[in-house]
Amino acid sequence: MAAFSFNKLVIFGVGLIGGSLARALRERAGATGEVVGVGRSAKSVERALELGVVDTAAILDDDRSLESALRGADIVLIAAPVAQTEPLLRRIAPFLDPRTIVTDAGSTKGDVILAARAALGNRVSQFVPGHPIAGRESSGVDAALSDLYADRNVVLCPLPENLPESVERVAAMWLATGASVHRMTPELHDSVLASVSHLPHVLSFALVEQILEAPDAALKFAFAAGGFRDFTRIAASSPEMWRDVCLANRTALLAQIDAYTNVLARFRAAIDASDGAALEAAFTRSRTARTEWKQGGALKPTDDSAIR
Amino acid sequence: MAAFSFNKLVIFGVGLIGGSLARALRERAGATGEVVGVGRSAKSVERALELGVVDTAAILDDDRSLESALRGADIVLIAAPVAQTEPLLRRIAPFLDPRTIVTDAGSTKGDVILAARAALGNRVSQFVPGHPIAGRESSGVDAALSDLYADRNVVLCPLPENLPESVERVAAMWLATGASVHRMTPELHDSVLASVSHLPHVLSFALVEQILEAPDAALKFAFAAGGFRDFTRIAASSPEMWRDVCLANRTALLAQIDAYTNVLARFRAAIDASDGAALEAAFTRSRTARTEWKQGGALKPTDDSAIR
Repeated sequence: MAAFSFNKLVIFGVGLIGGSLARALRERAGATGEVVGVGRSAKSVERALELGVVDTAAILDDDRSLESALRGADIVLIAAPVAQTEPLLRRIAPFLDPRTIVTDAGSTKGDVILAARAALGNRVSQFVPGHPIAGRESSGVDAALSDLYADRNVVLCPLPENLPESVERVAAMWLATGASVHRMTPELHDSVLASVSHLPHVLSFALVEQILEAPDAALKFAFAAGGFRDFTRIAASSPEMWRDVCLANRTALLAQIDAYTNVLARFRAAIDASDGAALEAAFTRSRTARTEWKQGGALKPTDDSAIR
Repeated sequence: MAAFSFNKLVIFGVGLIGGSLARALRERAGATGEVVGVGRSAKSVERALELGVVDTAAILDDDRSLESALRGADIVLIAAPVAQTEPLLRRIAPFLDPRTIVTDAGSTKGDVILAARAALGNRVSQFVPGHPIAGRESSGVDAALSDLYADRNVVLCPLPENLPESVERVAAMWLATGASVHRMTPELHDSVLASVSHLPHVLSFALVEQILEAPDAALKFAFAAGGFRDFTRIAASSPEMWRDVCLANRTALLAQIDAYTNVLARFRAAIDASDGAALEAAFTRSRTARTEWKQGGALKPTDDSAIR
């Protein structure tokens, strides 16, 4: 595991994502710098302090507390629902040291970059957009794990304005958590995530919605079993977060919904025509691909997106 | 746990489903009768014999072996892909004792009943259609568990021709495994299962198919994570079994695909219109329903389908 050191890391939103970064840098990378957690109220960071995940707490709406938190920070991480990126960066901007690097953990990147440009203006060069692709069913700082990012992928979408050494520094931070770090354009990131993450969430929510609308919903839920359980596990995800993701990644998500609707219409036609050979061929392709798939699996050596 | 005894139980297809019934009756219900496993070849039941899941093996295509297996049997279970129900029952018919009760474990019931009527004629009164709603990702007799059916639901779809005591006997057998036993019409069974089991499988296969068709499929799979993992777990299911289910339950499944396509189109319209309130409301309904859902959960006391 690569070592990583910093003087002061400031985390806006010390929940699962921010808390796991702090724990990984402490417990895996041997970092000894100060970790500051910023929340909306003293209460929201109290638990992070109790657990020792952060050393100091600061309050977002208190100018003196925020100024003191950001003074001399090497790295700032925004770990909040993506719709909060712009107001958070606007709040940070007046206190931002020119040597501080800001990064984020948002699930979408195109809208986050627009928000950063709007909030930071010329100082957007200090903002390196990022997305650690990791999570758990539980949330909050109690769920934070030092190995949440081990063998997971982190995507960075550097801006033309970023200094190469700023991008390298953020990459080094994530590498120290055990993750692989990749570089993509925001458009490619948003299209890939729309396909493999945002679309499945919408599809899973839609199945539960369909059952709820049926007159015999209670009967259907009573006889649902393992297939339903797995398919709808993500339909218990945060409504606010997924509302934000759907709106933030609207264009890419609509394209994926349309492509999916076409595949489903083809499957429907094969079932309607009792075309068992077409169904079996498609199901066999899926089973093979799904069986060979490995979470966090490496890209083929021909892929050139890997930073390390 | 209810006790259950038999003199001779004959299982056609000693894999996960048939093997788990045998183990449950032995290990949970204290049954001491003879269990006969019937397979296409000596080899296919060899492992069940080795594991002690069956006492005796018989070969389907050997008249003398099959006749001896069925002689004096109280109960016969067909545990094979649904498309094999009719040929199996035709093969059994000439050797079927008039006192033997035949039941099955197929995922669809309308087509199984048609198959049973075609194969058994007047003797269809001996056939009690059933469906234990349980399974595991692994298959084969090595995966058989004595508690596979504990706290799970079993649906029986009795025929007008069945003697009440035959239905009671099959119900008692499943109750002895720890399952709840319910009675439904085959139409209701096939509609409920189309909604909560067959449709999610089709939707999961369709997502993997869609990704495979994308020019950047390898990149997408590389960045897929936990949401994709859960959603597509069932896309690794048996292509043959699911081809059969889609064809056997074609009408009910098409209706569910159409209803789903409508819900998805509504979600699409809300995303297109950036209607965050509508999305959040729907996602919140889903999360609440999914969080409250419990696999194998009991029906409301007002429901009268429960046999016990």
